Amino acid sequence: MRQAGRYQPSYRAIREKVSFLELCHDPDLCAQVALRAVDDLGVDAAIVFADILLVLEPLGIGFEFTKDDGPRIERPVRLASDVDRVSPSIDANASLGYVMESVRRTKKALAGRVPLIGFSGAPFTLASYVIEGGGSREYSQTKRFMYADEGAWHELMKRLSGAITSYLVAQIDAGAEAIQLFDSWVGALGPDDYARYVQPHVASIFAALGDRVPAIHFGTGNPALYPLMKQAGGHVIGLDQRCELGSTWRALGDVAVQGNMDPIALLAPREVMIEKANAVLRAAGGRPGHVFNLGHGVVPQVDLAQARALVDHVHEASSR
Amino acid sequence: MRQAGRYQPSYRAIREKVSFLELCHDPDLCAQVALRAVDDLGVDAAIVFADILLVLEPLGIGFEFTKDDGPRIERPVRLASDVDRVSPSIDANASLGYVMESVRRTKKALAGRVPLIGFSGAPFTLASYVIEGGGSREYSQTKRFMYADEGAWHELMKRLSGAITSYLVAQIDAGAEAIQLFDSWVGALGPDDYARYVQPHVASIFAALGDRVPAIHFGTGNPALYPLMKQAGGHVIGLDQRCELGSTWRALGDVAVQGNMDPIALLAPREVMIEKANAVLRAAGGRPGHVFNLGHGVVPQVDLAQARALVDHVHEASSR
Repeated sequence: MRQAGRYQPSYRAIREKVSFLELCHDPDLCAQVALRAVDDLGVDAAIVFADILLVLEPLGIGFEFTKDDGPRIERPVRLASDVDRVSPSIDANASLGYVMESVRRTKKALAGRVPLIGFSGAPFTLASYVIEGGGSREYSQTKRFMYADEGAWHELMKRLSGAITSYLVAQIDAGAEAIQLFDSWVGALGPDDYARYVQPHVASIFAALGDRVPAIHFGTGNPALYPLMKQAGGHVIGLDQRCELGSTWRALGDVAVQGNMDPIALLAPREVMIEKANAVLRAAGGRPGHVFNLGHGVVPQVDLAQARALVDHVHEASSR
Repeated sequence: MRQAGRYQPSYRAIREKVSFLELCHDPDLCAQVALRAVDDLGVDAAIVFADILLVLEPLGIGFEFTKDDGPRIERPVRLASDVDRVSPSIDANASLGYVMESVRRTKKALAGRVPLIGFSGAPFTLASYVIEGGGSREYSQTKRFMYADEGAWHELMKRLSGAITSYLVAQIDAGAEAIQLFDSWVGALGPDDYARYVQPHVASIFAALGDRVPAIHFGTGNPALYPLMKQAGGHVIGLDQRCELGSTWRALGDVAVQGNMDPIALLAPREVMIEKANAVLRAAGGRPGHVFNLGHGVVPQVDLAQARALVDHVHEASSR
């Protein structure tokens, strides 16, 4: 998950001076906030500071972040013919070079202390932003597009997936030691729609990446999709709080898992949060291949000391 | 699901003259719009026209609907001490008499053509409105409250559940021939939290209702909760589009099911919608106890002729 965020006083101070996109475009500042999050939290991996939407820019899809940091696409893709506006391919090193520079500078600053994770949004999640024009609750425009013109949908997903692949490969080339694919909104779909409209594209990304670095496949909102997500690829499957980790992992079989801790549990009293972390650890049962993590990102209301206490507790409990 | 809505030209015409709450408080108009929906759609059951939040009024929780029909709670329950503001019990026939009058007049107008379904919001969904103050994406206030003071949470859920029970009993007394409990937002929880914070309260409602009329237990957003929802009660479990109906029903065992059709599929081209309806029917395989339904409510963008075509198709396909 993104580690740096508004829950950190140091991050809020930086964001008083620069906008979110200005920050994303400043490799030195990105390295600084990524490092600060590792220091603040004491976590076992860093994640490059970036946004899942950055890859849209070289694809020719303009966007901005509104004052409350919500994304807004300038000209949403609504008709099949709009897909022509999306570039068929990108040169990630040229157009997203500032992210690769962030990867390099963050890695240099980490000096081998912990590994660095690169990431991208997954094709369905990016498609839903591109089609809805921003966040959504029902994804009605996205599904309408998908159902109305399957050919145009697959073409859009193909262009997104190609760009995502180039982007992730470039991050690995720049030094990312693991990558994560974020399918944050895919849980709006049922298994049949996922298998038909999404899975082949996600599978093409993981197939292209191969085994160069560990790949984390994250999707939230629908535990019924995990078996299909595992089929699509990834060495680690991200689980959200909607499932029971033990039975879900057993059903998935031979794959590593991360997540499952409800991010909102960090707003609970300390002892309740610890109890919930222990429940996740118990469900994992020390089985190799469990990465303790939240089921989704840290929310801004979280107290930094509380987040740190969670990491410290997990370290202590896991070393027993 | 609610059948009458903005997708009907007749409903939009009425809503130009009266607000949503004025409509809910006018039993004649409620009967008229409920009947019109049955006529427009050709469905096998009517549902009383009301809103899941109406029960909050006698509980002492004021609310309004904003211009885009989103609910806004005047004074959200945020502290344990706020629970004292929620009435410990209600006299549903006295305080919600206008709903019972809608039940009676709708039933009279139906004249036995199709049965009439009454309904209420479920305690978690109502609690989340009451605590968040409106809709939410992360339910962070609700979960924070739930985790912070379990005693206060259970007291709030107990008061809501008592009122819901009285309200549903009154609707049955007034002539409702089935009832539905809507847990629209419960899918934000995982199985452990559901079992601990929600299930006992829902179970108390279904236990109190007994077998007087068929009871439908509807919850959306997390297929991993269905087994626990079945345990809590209801003769019919409502499934949303996030699961595969066949395997989900087999896992649930001996209970009827409804739903599973993605409401957004009604925005698809006719042949895609029909194909998706056929997939639901195939998954149900003619097993007794399957009620064809949407996984959630009809969205306003739906074309009435398209909705009618779906109902007609299901009738035709099921009579073969």
